[in-house]
Amino acid sequence: MGQKQTQIRTSPSNTGSTPGEFDLIERFFKQRSVDHPNSAIAFGIGDDCALINPSNNQQIAISTDMLVEGRHFLLGADPYLLGRKCLAVNLSDLAAMGASPVGFTLAIAMPEVKVDWLESFANGVWDIANEHDCQLIGGDTTAGPLTISITIFGHVPKDQSLGRHKAKVGDDIWISHQVGDARLSLGALRQEWALSAEEFSAVSQRMHNPTPRTALGKHLVGLAHAAIDISDGLLGDLNHILHQSSVSADILIDQVPGSKTLNSKSIELQRLCKLTGGDDYELCFTAPKDKFSQLEDLSSRLGLTLTKIGSIIEQAPTQRLIRLIDSNGQELSSSLSEQYLKSFDHFK
Amino acid sequence: MGQKQTQIRTSPSNTGSTPGEFDLIERFFKQRSVDHPNSAIAFGIGDDCALINPSNNQQIAISTDMLVEGRHFLLGADPYLLGRKCLAVNLSDLAAMGASPVGFTLAIAMPEVKVDWLESFANGVWDIANEHDCQLIGGDTTAGPLTISITIFGHVPKDQSLGRHKAKVGDDIWISHQVGDARLSLGALRQEWALSAEEFSAVSQRMHNPTPRTALGKHLVGLAHAAIDISDGLLGDLNHILHQSSVSADILIDQVPGSKTLNSKSIELQRLCKLTGGDDYELCFTAPKDKFSQLEDLSSRLGLTLTKIGSIIEQAPTQRLIRLIDSNGQELSSSLSEQYLKSFDHFK
Repeated sequence: MGQKQTQIRTSPSNTGSTPGEFDLIERFFKQRSVDHPNSAIAFGIGDDCALINPSNNQQIAISTDMLVEGRHFLLGADPYLLGRKCLAVNLSDLAAMGASPVGFTLAIAMPEVKVDWLESFANGVWDIANEHDCQLIGGDTTAGPLTISITIFGHVPKDQSLGRHKAKVGDDIWISHQVGDARLSLGALRQEWALSAEEFSAVSQRMHNPTPRTALGKHLVGLAHAAIDISDGLLGDLNHILHQSSVSADILIDQVPGSKTLNSKSIELQRLCKLTGGDDYELCFTAPKDKFSQLEDLSSRLGLTLTKIGSIIEQAPTQRLIRLIDSNGQELSSSLSEQYLKSFDHFK
Repeated sequence: MGQKQTQIRTSPSNTGSTPGEFDLIERFFKQRSVDHPNSAIAFGIGDDCALINPSNNQQIAISTDMLVEGRHFLLGADPYLLGRKCLAVNLSDLAAMGASPVGFTLAIAMPEVKVDWLESFANGVWDIANEHDCQLIGGDTTAGPLTISITIFGHVPKDQSLGRHKAKVGDDIWISHQVGDARLSLGALRQEWALSAEEFSAVSQRMHNPTPRTALGKHLVGLAHAAIDISDGLLGDLNHILHQSSVSADILIDQVPGSKTLNSKSIELQRLCKLTGGDDYELCFTAPKDKFSQLEDLSSRLGLTLTKIGSIIEQAPTQRLIRLIDSNGQELSSSLSEQYLKSFDHFK
């Protein structure tokens, strides 16, 4: 049982000699060689449990997500991209802790076994897993409404993880690459606004095929204090950092980086997409001012733009944790701010 | 953020000041003190990831399950017992590896937030978690068809885990406590056979409220070779051990222990329930013959019956891995054996 093979378990398993339909599922998840088998995986084959070898002076970081058809992804979503995205969002959670990927478990309920769908979905999962040296170590498959749950594991140097509660007064606030394209695409799909075919093509990849910032997260250990990945929207996610760190922030909203397509739109639409749009999976992090040049160096080395978008300004915050500052240095009006800071709830 | 608090994350999270319905869910999973906070949990609060501190010379054992309403539990199932069972089946997987529980993540999709249901479900989860010193370290909640996915983590001494591939020729085959009651109950519910109200009451607890054999599993490290928990039926589960260890087995089918109620039924019904019934979550394990008296001592110490039910008989097995032997020492007829060895598939 070499480290190059992984297997997804079906539940309950077939016990006889006649292959059940679920054997079809196993076919797509077992006996795939991976490019860089992770040495931390001691045993990833179908036993009751998988085994991970902890490394010296490392902690195990763990995150879990559940994605439901019609809620987190559209009916009829491209299965290859869906497979990529399911793992991408979990890789993004590891990155936000500064953890390096080790392995993941995958549980799927599906109404019926569709071979073509499964093959594409599995290809998507395997491709992004390989790109980030993250290995499938086990899982569960069953009949039910299409639901996918992934739990991911990574290593992070002991007591050095990035944390939502670690922002300090005086920190700069940074964001990786650009935000807002996922929201811009979604709005076009929902007919909230129109995009040309060319524009839609340029921005929709960001929604369907996000890039987890694995290398950035790992290299931020020792440089950054707090970090979070932008899944629900920049302001909402930043708010978690502020709340858990008991600090507040000034955000220079017109310095938040967007794509060329988004930057060609009205200032109102830019702000809506950049400040409240989710699903971009960029990292927002805080770092001491004296790390500025090291972060610029890191940006060059990774070939990934990092932009300072604000500052942590005070301890013992008031009710409002975020002040939104426009390009004239003026705070946005209260009513306009509220529009961007409004809540989101999956049951609404 | 002390170790005595845990929190389940909602996805996406509320970012504004108006509490969403999902806050109701958080209420049931956060800020509960646990009786014995697990020192291996470094950080279990709502960040992007939870953190586990590995112990010296221990590996991390990981298992995951997905349970779907109408498939793994009945519509309208008692939520307290459902909460218990969801974690019990995962604790049972750890026990089958010889691993001691550390923590778990819980992901739930539910169509709407029902406060009473959630409160009972959470109470069930918390009660059994406390009984087994296993701590909630994170999770995800979302709207969707009722689906529950748990991933559990435990510690097992490095390179000493029990494994399905570790059975050796000459090993005795053992089973803990009794099997078959869960199947006996299910058959009564399905009107395959009749039970008196008294009988049903006596056996149905085994289906609804199984007991993971945590202490047994932990103590089998160093005594047993292979182990598996009986979730899909004794023969089907044992077959995994035989297949993965490349050995075959003789099973003394009328020595498989059952409850007083089950033992009062016909020999055919006893065999059906004991050999093919799932959901009992007892441990089936193999151990060298010279561990017999140590296993008897362990049974006394734990107050848990352990019964020898067969032997591992040969390497390089033929197609048929299990020979079923009756109380006269005769092998069951081929057609009768097939009946017990037939497959199970969730999609059939």
